[in-house]
Amino acid sequence: MENCLFCKIAAKEIPAKVIYEDEQLIAIEDIKPVAPVHILLIPRGHISTLNETNVGNLELLGHIQLTAAKIAEEMKIDKTGYRLVNNNGSEGGQEVMHLHYHLLGGREMIWPPG
Amino acid sequence: MENCLFCKIAAKEIPAKVIYEDEQLIAIEDIKPVAPVHILLIPRGHISTLNETNVGNLELLGHIQLTAAKIAEEMKIDKTGYRLVNNNGSEGGQEVMHLHYHLLGGREMIWPPG
Repeated sequence: MENCLFCKIAAKEIPAKVIYEDEQLIAIEDIKPVAPVHILLIPRGHISTLNETNVGNLELLGHIQLTAAKIAEEMKIDKTGYRLVNNNGSEGGQEVMHLHYHLLGGREMIWPPG
Repeated sequence: MENCLFCKIAAKEIPAKVIYEDEQLIAIEDIKPVAPVHILLIPRGHISTLNETNVGNLELLGHIQLTAAKIAEEMKIDKTGYRLVNNNGSEGGQEVMHLHYHLLGGREMIWPPG
């Protein structure tokens, strides 16, 4: 989608520190990290929010969760723990309107989660 | 699994305010809500954390995401926004060792998410 930051990052038109990528998604470091490990998991195809998903996205959404766990293991935060966060819309705190999940770890995450 | 709170809730051995249920998962109100809408999505089968999942759980994990969006719509927080959170292990803030996702909305969620 034109003028979408995450579409451009997925297409390598805008640089980012890529942690992992495959045919379905790209994972990059957040440029404003709020934890020692702060990675964004972004599907390559443009989906604005979780509201826009349907059963056709079932496997993609599952793959994002499994990939987050895999990256957590690679970043060595699987044993200590981590938090996976998806923000939806204004009150959810979503800043880029392209579906993404935040993987956060390397410190104790407090409660409530925002 | 014996002595697992969420297994017992899924089996209706311990009461909870059920918001939604199907063959794969149950969604209940959190007993210590931190937002006006605070719902837990819990798979019926025992999986302790996201670390323990594998490709056999792909569809279940996707279904949890889609169901969160569906419940958000039913709770009328889809337009205002919401946050979906999965805590893994100690530093992630996981209190019950049975995989679950928190759906939070009805107020502005702040950043960072804990």
